[in-house]
Amino acid sequence: MEKAALIELRKVMNEKAVDVLIIPTDDYHQSEYVGEFFKARAYVSGFTGSYGTLVVTPSDAFLWTDGRYFIQAQKQLEGTGIKLMEMGEKDVPEIEDYIAEVLPEGGLIAFDGRVMSFAEGKKFSEIAEDKKGKLMTDTDFPDLIWEDRPTLSKEKAFYLEEKYTGELTGSKLERIRNEMAKYGADGHLIGSLDDTNWILNIRGNDIRYSPMVLSYLYIGKDSADVFIDGSKLNDEIRKNLEENNIEVHPYDSVYEFISKIKGVKSILINPGKMNFSLVNSIPRSVELIERVNPSTFFKAVKNETEIENIKKAHIKDGVAWVKYMYWTKNNIGSIPMTEISSENKLEEFRKEQPGYLWPSFAPICGYGPHGAIVHYESTEESDVPLEAKGLLLSDTGANYYEGSTDITRTLVLGEISEEARFHFTLILKSNLALSMGKFIKGASGFTLDMLARKPLWDNNLNFNHGTGHGVGYLLNIHEGPSGFRYKIVPTKNEDYPIEAGMIITVEPGIYIENQYGIRLENEVLVKNGVRNEYGQFMYFEPVTLVPFDMEGVDTSLLTSEETEYLNTYHRRVFDMISLYLEEDEKLWLGKITAPLGGKN
Amino acid sequence: MEKAALIELRKVMNEKAVDVLIIPTDDYHQSEYVGEFFKARAYVSGFTGSYGTLVVTPSDAFLWTDGRYFIQAQKQLEGTGIKLMEMGEKDVPEIEDYIAEVLPEGGLIAFDGRVMSFAEGKKFSEIAEDKKGKLMTDTDFPDLIWEDRPTLSKEKAFYLEEKYTGELTGSKLERIRNEMAKYGADGHLIGSLDDTNWILNIRGNDIRYSPMVLSYLYIGKDSADVFIDGSKLNDEIRKNLEENNIEVHPYDSVYEFISKIKGVKSILINPGKMNFSLVNSIPRSVELIERVNPSTFFKAVKNETEIENIKKAHIKDGVAWVKYMYWTKNNIGSIPMTEISSENKLEEFRKEQPGYLWPSFAPICGYGPHGAIVHYESTEESDVPLEAKGLLLSDTGANYYEGSTDITRTLVLGEISEEARFHFTLILKSNLALSMGKFIKGASGFTLDMLARKPLWDNNLNFNHGTGHGVGYLLNIHEGPSGFRYKIVPTKNEDYPIEAGMIITVEPGIYIENQYGIRLENEVLVKNGVRNEYGQFMYFEPVTLVPFDMEGVDTSLLTSEETEYLNTYHRRVFDMISLYLEEDEKLWLGKITAPLGGKN
Repeated sequence: MEKAALIELRKVMNEKAVDVLIIPTDDYHQSEYVGEFFKARAYVSGFTGSYGTLVVTPSDAFLWTDGRYFIQAQKQLEGTGIKLMEMGEKDVPEIEDYIAEVLPEGGLIAFDGRVMSFAEGKKFSEIAEDKKGKLMTDTDFPDLIWEDRPTLSKEKAFYLEEKYTGELTGSKLERIRNEMAKYGADGHLIGSLDDTNWILNIRGNDIRYSPMVLSYLYIGKDSADVFIDGSKLNDEIRKNLEENNIEVHPYDSVYEFISKIKGVKSILINPGKMNFSLVNSIPRSVELIERVNPSTFFKAVKNETEIENIKKAHIKDGVAWVKYMYWTKNNIGSIPMTEISSENKLEEFRKEQPGYLWPSFAPICGYGPHGAIVHYESTEESDVPLEAKGLLLSDTGANYYEGSTDITRTLVLGEISEEARFHFTLILKSNLALSMGKFIKGASGFTLDMLARKPLWDNNLNFNHGTGHGVGYLLNIHEGPSGFRYKIVPTKNEDYPIEAGMIITVEPGIYIENQYGIRLENEVLVKNGVRNEYGQFMYFEPVTLVPFDMEGVDTSLLTSEETEYLNTYHRRVFDMISLYLEEDEKLWLGKITAPLGGKN
Repeated sequence: MEKAALIELRKVMNEKAVDVLIIPTDDYHQSEYVGEFFKARAYVSGFTGSYGTLVVTPSDAFLWTDGRYFIQAQKQLEGTGIKLMEMGEKDVPEIEDYIAEVLPEGGLIAFDGRVMSFAEGKKFSEIAEDKKGKLMTDTDFPDLIWEDRPTLSKEKAFYLEEKYTGELTGSKLERIRNEMAKYGADGHLIGSLDDTNWILNIRGNDIRYSPMVLSYLYIGKDSADVFIDGSKLNDEIRKNLEENNIEVHPYDSVYEFISKIKGVKSILINPGKMNFSLVNSIPRSVELIERVNPSTFFKAVKNETEIENIKKAHIKDGVAWVKYMYWTKNNIGSIPMTEISSENKLEEFRKEQPGYLWPSFAPICGYGPHGAIVHYESTEESDVPLEAKGLLLSDTGANYYEGSTDITRTLVLGEISEEARFHFTLILKSNLALSMGKFIKGASGFTLDMLARKPLWDNNLNFNHGTGHGVGYLLNIHEGPSGFRYKIVPTKNEDYPIEAGMIITVEPGIYIENQYGIRLENEVLVKNGVRNEYGQFMYFEPVTLVPFDMEGVDTSLLTSEETEYLNTYHRRVFDMISLYLEEDEKLWLGKITAPLGGKN
């Protein structure tokens, strides 16, 4: 069947004389997760993983994906005529390099400019230019051959009340307009859903996990225009839009709207968070002021209402987690469990909590060697039974009306090796070191990352991912510009100093191939501490309320400061969570959060 | 007299209808220190500090300078008709903002484009454009009125032999041309002296402290062109130039040369290290590839020969320092000393060392409250006697043929307060924490800086400067792209990962206004450690060989790891230095480097 789609695709490519067709995995908003309508790459190739790019030429077809999907892709591509390009492996070319090589002089590269970020699209545009060739970006090729394509999501949107957002749309627009004035921008065009949804105080269900509504927003000096499927809007939302002088237009009309914009000299855009077609629809006569969207910075700093809500969400999530930990550790070896059943069990407990919506991202539940695969997603094929030994890494999150959570615990299901215990202890030390960190205003996550890395680097160990990321409030679970990272990724804007009110994860890990993975993740709230002649000092307050599984820890390696911090944390977990537990759960929580005897 | 210069200047401004004249403190190469010829701002204003910008309009004249010069500038500007703009103080406008305000519509801004960096010049060019005005950058206004102007330096250059450089010009050019090819550059124009002198293996004495020769360099695919005063060159240098197909042109002819360049499609330049006129002399038809000069990265990584030499230089400097410490601590209270006499004493000891050239930067020798002024330079007016109490902060450096040094010690001259002892101990802990740091390849100084900051931040303290900088080999004492810093300064390129072979300073400090300053500075060499499945681990080896004055330290606050590291360091100092000392000096060194009893 996949092969048939490929044959059909080549027919339409031939009609339009396309030499290279690129089908990425993206929606019109460069979202982390995409809706069913956007899964064209999966439809054509048969490969269903969350990450990959398909490149089709008249004679060849290749799919690029990364390490976590090599096995799955190999299997799913069998017999499709599509070959796998294993990204990061030796001798595997970059997509650009491959295209630059196969594109004939004067050739034609095609991709749907709406599902390609401006930065990516520019690269292909330059390749075409180098070859004196052409670019076709106004055609959705998969759509021409996709008979039963799912429609764009029609899920209803909902208005997020002030008791959850803490700030009305009017105030948000005012702050954004102040920034626009500062940079001399007459208008501001926004393509990223986390920004549009935050500004409009709307949420929905158009995208899996991230509760957002497909939309674009144009902000002028006095009025604004939203591009959205009007059938999703209820009276509350319409009222809010009217009150703020925001006109509703059909979702797809943004391209025409912006191409015909009048009386505007300059527009503020973030080309890193906008699709290729949309940027190119802005008239050439308009000056582009390229900056990070002001709302990106604003929403990263949570207001008092949001913080209060987030703390409530973490009590709920803590209750679900403690119940899940107790149930798992109590029943392992007697009740059959697998990775998937364990994920489901945790969700069951979350569903019992009021205001629960759905998971905030694709759950990672990896037992034993699966824990060592950083982005592991258990599938029917990969699922394994859990036994009363070894380590279970569980990294999941929930969306409540009171906010989104992201938490990882590694559970000790039975006997573990001395090496595993040492590693578990190091990761706990790493988590505590960063969580206990004190710093001065102006420091960024690049500097603070050292605290988490030190226990590992001192032992010639490391983990190959960031130590933490900002967390959106019912938006994206990975939210810039805050983060802890030592490798600088310019597009992430993480050079932005850490500010009071940010919520960031602390999630060091260690991954021993074919053996186990250990990751311990808390969310922390950034707070202001002492202010003196040197400046504003800051610290972190943990918002996650889940005990660490101390069965994995060699407590003799903890310093007295670490022990004291841990005891305080565990006492707080008990105080906040125990009210909501059954008697046996409560007893168990009391036992595992009991204070450790400190050194000295 | 200054006033007369100002009157003269206004006359020529009037003739050319200049509305705003800017006189910065810079040479044609954006050097850290400038030669006498370039001290136009001092000539016109009378203010002799190392940092300041003079702005003259038909009716007003203002000098901008920073905190370390407020008092001196106030005094020197008296009666000149020039008013002081205290940078960083409340209500003091930025230079650009002031000019944007006073420039009339259609007005004319003038500055010598050769003494203004491209980045700075661009700002003023934009102001002129906004006002539909003009820019005049081809006139050296001070020169028109400066009767006894010193000539450009005529000091002879010398060839730095292979036994010092470890790499011939041919090899350097080859590496640079490989980089040019990588970025598709036909040519590469270089304005920064550290780069030109490093590539050509020449040094000289055109600039105070930094032993470099005024020159520009253009590198083509097969040949190169140097722009330099030919009378400075000896046979050895000429031979080296000829062998490498490098043609010699008059120093000032670079502007015409580059403006008439033929057959070149693209030129690699670093606009941050090139003057405004030079960048603007490149024909518009040539594509500018804007990058950091490849030589900037190359020279930051010292080769084996350089490292061996640098270690020798540090033995010499260690000997001078130990003699100076012993002499000072032995004679304080009995032989009269002042800040300046103390500086001179240290230089006396350095002059006894073979291969000593001159200081590598302006010495900082601050007693008591003067130590709290970060960029303090003792002058005849500010000099004070040293007494047998309190702290003396001495930050100085030397140029030897074997390399440049930069070292700070704070000496305890007698009784100090308990607070001072606590601060001294914290700064030692900070220095040791970073020096003992282990990390993985890919980490930058932004991340490592945390190690030095932690002892301070944990105590709500901080210092308002970088923790360390790369050190040039007989070039600039402050050499990019390496450095330890938590505040990101984009122009410094310090996001570049730390590499083996770099030499970087570690210099935390604390400054208690009106009381004392404490800074402890070592240079460290970056080395490769374990390489495993996680990557290349790295560590630092100290190259400075000077004891810390343990009289300032509360050793009970040191951890056993710190004590052990310190004991090893002090033993090494004794082993390397004691051979070159008199008997009494040796005895003293043995006593102050004796191992401390560690905790446990």
